[in-house]
Amino acid sequence: MIIEIKQSSANMAADLAAKAKAFQIDYLGKTYLITGSNLKEVPDYLDNHTAQHWVFSNDIQLASKKFQVEKREVSFGKVSIGGQTNNTILIGGPCSVESEEQIRSAAQLLTSMGLTTLRGGCYKPRTSPYSFQGLGLEGLELLAKMRQEYGLSVITEARDATHIQEIIEHTDIIQVGAKAMYDQGILRACSKIKKPVLIKRGFGTTLQEFVQAAEFVLSGGNENVVLCERGIRTFETGTRFTLDLCGVAWLQEHCNLPIVLDPSHAMGYAYGVNPLARACVAMGIDGLLIEAHPNPKVAKSDASQQLNYDEFKTLKDDLQKVAQSIGYQIV
Amino acid sequence: MIIEIKQSSANMAADLAAKAKAFQIDYLGKTYLITGSNLKEVPDYLDNHTAQHWVFSNDIQLASKKFQVEKREVSFGKVSIGGQTNNTILIGGPCSVESEEQIRSAAQLLTSMGLTTLRGGCYKPRTSPYSFQGLGLEGLELLAKMRQEYGLSVITEARDATHIQEIIEHTDIIQVGAKAMYDQGILRACSKIKKPVLIKRGFGTTLQEFVQAAEFVLSGGNENVVLCERGIRTFETGTRFTLDLCGVAWLQEHCNLPIVLDPSHAMGYAYGVNPLARACVAMGIDGLLIEAHPNPKVAKSDASQQLNYDEFKTLKDDLQKVAQSIGYQIV
Amino acid sequence: MIIEIKQSSANMAADLAAKAKAFQIDYLGKTYLITGSNLKEVPDYLDNHTAQHWVFSNDIQLASKKFQVEKREVSFGKVSIGGQTNNTILIGGPCSVESEEQIRSAAQLLTSMGLTTLRGGCYKPRTSPYSFQGLGLEGLELLAKMRQEYGLSVITEARDATHIQEIIEHTDIIQVGAKAMYDQGILRACSKIKKPVLIKRGFGTTLQEFVQAAEFVLSGGNENVVLCERGIRTFETGTRFTLDLCGVAWLQEHCNLPIVLDPSHAMGYAYGVNPLARACVAMGIDGLLIEAHPNPKVAKSDASQQLNYDEFKTLKDDLQKVAQSIGYQIV
Amino acid sequence: MIIEIKQSSANMAADLAAKAKAFQIDYLGKTYLITGSNLKEVPDYLDNHTAQHWVFSNDIQLASKKFQVEKREVSFGKVSIGGQTNNTILIGGPCSVESEEQIRSAAQLLTSMGLTTLRGGCYKPRTSPYSFQGLGLEGLELLAKMRQEYGLSVITEARDATHIQEIIEHTDIIQVGAKAMYDQGILRACSKIKKPVLIKRGFGTTLQEFVQAAEFVLSGGNENVVLCERGIRTFETGTRFTLDLCGVAWLQEHCNLPIVLDPSHAMGYAYGVNPLARACVAMGIDGLLIEAHPNPKVAKSDASQQLNYDEFKTLKDDLQKVAQSIGYQIV
Repeated sequence: MIIEIKQSSANMAADLAAKAKAFQIDYLGKTYLITGSNLKEVPDYLDNHTAQHWVFSNDIQLASKKFQVEKREVSFGKVSIGGQTNNTILIGGPCSVESEEQIRSAAQLLTSMGLTTLRGGCYKPRTSPYSFQGLGLEGLELLAKMRQEYGLSVITEARDATHIQEIIEHTDIIQVGAKAMYDQGILRACSKIKKPVLIKRGFGTTLQEFVQAAEFVLSGGNENVVLCERGIRTFETGTRFTLDLCGVAWLQEHCNLPIVLDPSHAMGYAYGVNPLARACVAMGIDGLLIEAHPNPKVAKSDASQQLNYDEFKTLKDDLQKVAQSIGYQIV
Repeated sequence: MIIEIKQSSANMAADLAAKAKAFQIDYLGKTYLITGSNLKEVPDYLDNHTAQHWVFSNDIQLASKKFQVEKREVSFGKVSIGGQTNNTILIGGPCSVESEEQIRSAAQLLTSMGLTTLRGGCYKPRTSPYSFQGLGLEGLELLAKMRQEYGLSVITEARDATHIQEIIEHTDIIQVGAKAMYDQGILRACSKIKKPVLIKRGFGTTLQEFVQAAEFVLSGGNENVVLCERGIRTFETGTRFTLDLCGVAWLQEHCNLPIVLDPSHAMGYAYGVNPLARACVAMGIDGLLIEAHPNPKVAKSDASQQLNYDEFKTLKDDLQKVAQSIGYQIV
Repeated sequence: MIIEIKQSSANMAADLAAKAKAFQIDYLGKTYLITGSNLKEVPDYLDNHTAQHWVFSNDIQLASKKFQVEKREVSFGKVSIGGQTNNTILIGGPCSVESEEQIRSAAQLLTSMGLTTLRGGCYKPRTSPYSFQGLGLEGLELLAKMRQEYGLSVITEARDATHIQEIIEHTDIIQVGAKAMYDQGILRACSKIKKPVLIKRGFGTTLQEFVQAAEFVLSGGNENVVLCERGIRTFETGTRFTLDLCGVAWLQEHCNLPIVLDPSHAMGYAYGVNPLARACVAMGIDGLLIEAHPNPKVAKSDASQQLNYDEFKTLKDDLQKVAQSIGYQIV
Repeated sequence: MIIEIKQSSANMAADLAAKAKAFQIDYLGKTYLITGSNLKEVPDYLDNHTAQHWVFSNDIQLASKKFQVEKREVSFGKVSIGGQTNNTILIGGPCSVESEEQIRSAAQLLTSMGLTTLRGGCYKPRTSPYSFQGLGLEGLELLAKMRQEYGLSVITEARDATHIQEIIEHTDIIQVGAKAMYDQGILRACSKIKKPVLIKRGFGTTLQEFVQAAEFVLSGGNENVVLCERGIRTFETGTRFTLDLCGVAWLQEHCNLPIVLDPSHAMGYAYGVNPLARACVAMGIDGLLIEAHPNPKVAKSDASQQLNYDEFKTLKDDLQKVAQSIGYQIV
């Protein structure tokens, strides 16, 4: 249940929250208490302090359109997504930060194209200890350098809770990876800040669990959450994963969070990235994460699915046309 | 292996096919023998009769772009899809033919919108014996009547081999349903005719098996095959199925058959049909199957996912814009 | 709803069934009408003719323990399974009938081991037209010959409705294959006979759909139905399918039909058949289908998963010990 | 590649490992270097120092039977599993530690049954922030108290890297939960100790990824790793997950690690725990995790799947018979 506390009772909110074992947040100038959805009636001791309340059938609450029907607007530095913006942000960059030369070339590419947000993995969630694990802090510092030199926003992925503070310090947007999205160490750390948090759906994760991961961040007081669908694991092995656009339609119907899609990881093959990205944009989504590498063949991870820079430029042009056909623009 | 027989040996093709235990087909004025892909070298006795040959790593052969890189063109009566047409056909109509009044209203709707192909189920592949099973032959006759009165092409689904001849007689395009796509009784009957055959992917079917179902029809001599993705079964239950657009990208890359998509069945909820259909069109596909009903709430099957007629008209307008943005048109 | 008609009204049952659009069956000396589960109250015009009735939340009705809590007993010729028998029948034989010599060797093996039921495929539901498709009628006649010479019961699989009558004529138990289990042509033909019908679960089929396939046969008047779990399709590719023993526990809890398991197809590799078969037997199931071939390496289908005859004999010994530990016996 | 370093070169191992960018471990009195499986030939500079080496087709290396065919033996305090022991350990206890009274009752139950290892969750990996999250450190201290008073080994689950040191300090066996098994913060911490680590398979995790998680621990120097299958997520919703016993057969064939199964979480319903546990034991596995609660109806988590104490005692008796039928014993 979400309970909006009367203005006149706001100074008692902390005590009331403790009594109700509820989360307390301030959002758009109002104070709310949030409990589990199993609570269906406002407790007597809150009656006089309650302005209005919302009852839910499951634990999708703050993210639900039943609580707030308008899509939230989240700022990614120079541009915002969601809300009334009709922006679809195109976030590009390599799977992994490999060297200054490599990440600089990506930064230059984005800048030359008028794009604003650079991605690059520093802590790679590889499934084998014998694979390249990312540059770690060195990579973070390279990203921060690009931010400073090129005025880009940077986003990178947290693999586990041991380095979440480093990531929060060095980046503009924190990505919670698909394999880490149940990680409460990460989620709770992200709930205490105000930087945007992009949560990737686990490949074995239901839509409900996915949105509930966002509730960990929202209920802790950070309202800047973006959901990212990146493919689920199915029986089909011709492609790496299965991008769940039915799920995106479901999220658009039920949730108030902006939605970013990652067709690169879903497909696993560069040939499918352009048509899939067009499909995503046609749905009216808020952003795309696309892997691009100066020379995909020698990439240290995800070689098969990264676009080269010419393909990436073509992609933007193609997407812009589709976006405009539905009243959006690629930014 | 596919072997193109020299013109000079064409009169011996039947004997050669028997010796090689191969399928023999005539396609675009040439004669081909087709064997399993385990055959990797042309047998000695065929050497002098072979114009050229193709070796395959699996049993996707006639449908493979390695055999013919150009997408096949298939005629649906007044319009063609595939080939160089850049047409995306919008096939509409109710889940089930329920009455003359109902199917006539659908025929009138399509005609008024300039569309050409009417769908409607007569033999419903319900999973319970206690559900509405379709009108059977009576439904087929209603469809045939609409064809005659309105000049529409009609398509309906074969549920099993017991009524395939009736369907072949009464319709223009034969739909092999998702639950029937392994049915060799149906596939072999369809291979002996020239009418277009639309094969739906089973919800538990791999892409390779899916295309191999088409090979049953192609190797029997019917080159007019269209593939239809309609959602696969995954762990996600928020939507009815999961539309596999990664799989569509794979099909576009590897196969020469036109591709039609069915977002209605994949989604299971009307609210998602429009955004998903836009996504499909943006990929450059050859057609869409969309369920529309004059009053979805009282539909005898699939009530939740059918559009009403206003929604269907809006859909066409929305799709046309997306189609044009990539150089296609809705027909 | 299932309605038991009073003895005194039995002569009116056909008329009442027509009025209620219900299936009518005779079972264990009583007459029942069966409608869809959406009917929750006995119609007025049946009130005086109703001895008792059962309401259901879904279309699992005749197969439900809510209708009959005791497991049904089904006779496989010399032995019965289900009911109070505590028998686990071990059905063996090759994937495909390939020759008289091969199937005779299997018949001799079974006979020497005291087993009673021989399996062998004649119409193989291959996914490629270029693979071995089975011997068809010739195979059926070989099976019938073995039955006559060795006194064995024989079971083979129907691939589609075009040959179901041949199979009914030549075999003792009709197997509805995993790819054919939605085939109403087959299911309705099987509902009109009294021979046992073994329905395999489709690899993309839910438990509810699986049992509803049995309802097609049961509601048509054939009470001799056996369910066979043979593995579902999941994201895991290390094995061919995933044997769903949680699903078996669910079936044991909710259904009154005997349950046979097919670990050979689920696993896809001979090395796993023995441990998986032991697992199945320990659950207290009613039978096992095990593929065995005189020389698996040269088998025309499913070469990797068939046991050789020594492995099959060892298997029976191993299973007998496990069966006895839970009060069952292998027959 | 795994390279066994000659005894005479052991003092140079650290330098060689650095040069080869390899992990170095000591195992059973010998020194090994481990690199990624992409290395197929011993580098020249290692030639003179190499006693023997193993090449692998994927990154399952130290856990592979190709490296060591004998199953590893792992000690759980008073009892060992794996190796030649033929022990199947029955680990019991509640889903969550809820109170001293509750966990004491479980400790007393186990002790009275001659069992040795107590489970109980302290950091629950709940998917909603609004659910009971476990007692945390207070729960760990209660477990440690039970260990001291009753001489039991205790096992609990790490949810994320923020509390892994607390768990290592307070328990005998560290459980890496299904949602945390990609967590390198946890895995690397576990690789630096010698306590046994039980890794649960993620519900969307392939067998190969699962074993590679174990390689993180093994390659760091902790050889005491146990794998735990607990059900994967499939399209079937009649049960909570699908216990993958085909996968267990695969693990038994390919890996040298002991295997523990968790049928409680897989099934999700108490009624299926006994038959599934019998199935597991019949395969010759090394242990079972079973949830038992003094009063399952009031449990704070997983209420539907926990056995009461009488059911748990019956379970042990039933399992002992099955275990003995295959030459094992429940300990």
